[in-house]
Amino acid sequence: MGGDHGPSIVVPGVAQAAQALPGVRFLLHGDSARIEAELARCPAARAVSEVRHCDKAIAMDEKPAQAMRRGKGSSMWNAIESVRADEAQACVSAGNTGALMAISKLILRMGAELERPAIVANWPNMKGVATVLDVGANVESDADQLVEFAIMGAAFHHAMHGVERPTVGLLNVGSEDQKGHEEVREAHAILREAKLDFDYHGFVEGSDLAYGVVDVVVTDGFTGNVALKTAEGMARFFSNEIRTTLTSGPLAMLGAMIASGALKRMRQRLDPSRVNGAPLLGLNGIVVKSHGGADANGFASAVRVAINLARSDFRAEIDRNLKSLTAAAAKDEASKAGQDQGAVE
Amino acid sequence: MGGDHGPSIVVPGVAQAAQALPGVRFLLHGDSARIEAELARCPAARAVSEVRHCDKAIAMDEKPAQAMRRGKGSSMWNAIESVRADEAQACVSAGNTGALMAISKLILRMGAELERPAIVANWPNMKGVATVLDVGANVESDADQLVEFAIMGAAFHHAMHGVERPTVGLLNVGSEDQKGHEEVREAHAILREAKLDFDYHGFVEGSDLAYGVVDVVVTDGFTGNVALKTAEGMARFFSNEIRTTLTSGPLAMLGAMIASGALKRMRQRLDPSRVNGAPLLGLNGIVVKSHGGADANGFASAVRVAINLARSDFRAEIDRNLKSLTAAAAKDEASKAGQDQGAVE
Repeated sequence: MGGDHGPSIVVPGVAQAAQALPGVRFLLHGDSARIEAELARCPAARAVSEVRHCDKAIAMDEKPAQAMRRGKGSSMWNAIESVRADEAQACVSAGNTGALMAISKLILRMGAELERPAIVANWPNMKGVATVLDVGANVESDADQLVEFAIMGAAFHHAMHGVERPTVGLLNVGSEDQKGHEEVREAHAILREAKLDFDYHGFVEGSDLAYGVVDVVVTDGFTGNVALKTAEGMARFFSNEIRTTLTSGPLAMLGAMIASGALKRMRQRLDPSRVNGAPLLGLNGIVVKSHGGADANGFASAVRVAINLARSDFRAEIDRNLKSLTAAAAKDEASKAGQDQGAVE
Repeated sequence: MGGDHGPSIVVPGVAQAAQALPGVRFLLHGDSARIEAELARCPAARAVSEVRHCDKAIAMDEKPAQAMRRGKGSSMWNAIESVRADEAQACVSAGNTGALMAISKLILRMGAELERPAIVANWPNMKGVATVLDVGANVESDADQLVEFAIMGAAFHHAMHGVERPTVGLLNVGSEDQKGHEEVREAHAILREAKLDFDYHGFVEGSDLAYGVVDVVVTDGFTGNVALKTAEGMARFFSNEIRTTLTSGPLAMLGAMIASGALKRMRQRLDPSRVNGAPLLGLNGIVVKSHGGADANGFASAVRVAINLARSDFRAEIDRNLKSLTAAAAKDEASKAGQDQGAVE
């Protein structure tokens, strides 16, 4: 029921995703009359869907605390609850992000030691698409949380793009070891020493987001959110400039008309809906946020993210890496204690 | 002597700036043989310049600490020293940024209570050019420092663009009062109450940098540096995409050729050298950093920034606002103490 368009984009999105990745079935939570009306127009979706009626829906502007108190029995609540009850392997929602995070955390609980789930951005760059996290949930992140982001981001990138050992970079203001604040320097030291299922590249800078220097970029939610929105704003600025430029006079318009095929292909390559679908990481269960303004293509892309995650072993990979980190830290403590004892003797 | 090109861009840059803003004289510090060779080719610069020879120059890759220890007598040192000695009203350098900050701080000392000078970015956006600070010097900034950035940024924007009461926004992850970490929320509370020579707009988000919602955007040096480099990277990404698109086939190339005039005007509008010249704010004196890779146009733009600042009363404006803030805080304390006393009686 969520997002700017509700069932009118969710149902055709489900149809698209079902055709691309067969063998998946869908529980559609919400107002059955509206959903059935869409399904009647979309036999490909009807064939794979079951409708679960509820009267309530969470408004896009509802505060998270309010949504938690009053959300029980809403379409969002029921969708997440179906994941907890093992009826569904993943939940996809285009609804209110704050409410989705709060209710997911309440129902599914955190697996990692994060305060709130981390949000991933799929970031188009010169070499393809990078995984960037956190982009908004945790405004302050200590070194251990940054390391958790690295582990979760690498597992997500592996599941989504099939890269065996993703490269991971830590966002900073320079590449030397002594740059940045304490949290990033400490996380850098931990990641450099740890033996995990990915390759730690070291520090990266803001410009490396566009250059595609690493597969996974790790940062706190404050910096990540500002960087993401800065990039989105700049993208809109540049496309406005191109549009203004190419309609600025008869010659420019003629040129633009002739080059229109190539310009259209460029817009598609940079189209954010091609990479729509941001998982909330750190939960005991898969929840994927679709952009509220996404169209059916975009919603289908978010559904594909959820299916890829559900079919992968990314949660086992996260657990394995977290355990190997804890074991290494314990061993380190033990050897330190041994040395201290040696010094006393 | 600094930057990628040294005197070969500095001297023609001086000539350009002198023609645009007559009545200014220049002290050129560095290797007199190289400078004189350039001046011989550039009579407009020779007419307004005096050469101050020195043998030493600070390398672009020298560490700030090393530059401070060994920099005495270098061209950068002497240029800053001429500001301290009141021989010059401002210093412009295309050299090593870290060294320029460290030596400026050592020689001129901080006027504001900052750890290091704040660096300003002149940020092109949909409405013109905004002033964004800090973009790199102070990786952690408390609420008082953010308020100082607001005061200095507004005074700079006034001096540079003639805007009587600039609008100032604080960069955050959302616009509601409770968003963000403690430092931004506290700075927000101070700026909302203070009566200063600018209009405090409230929180702005990363996307507002491109939209041009406010004249001055205030943030800590970590977030500001990441945002600036993210935007620079995205700008390069988009221009690469446009180039690739418009050379992707014979039709696209024909279109691009026809539209080339308009495309060239667009590139000029987005050209960072048009707005080159980043002042180091918070010092007892004017020091402007020109981008190391800037050409003569770019260097001239940095010189114009320095001249505009030197001719304005921006330092008096900063002092006035800092004092009015301190006075308000003292009054607040006194009235609180009075209330406490009242409660005791």
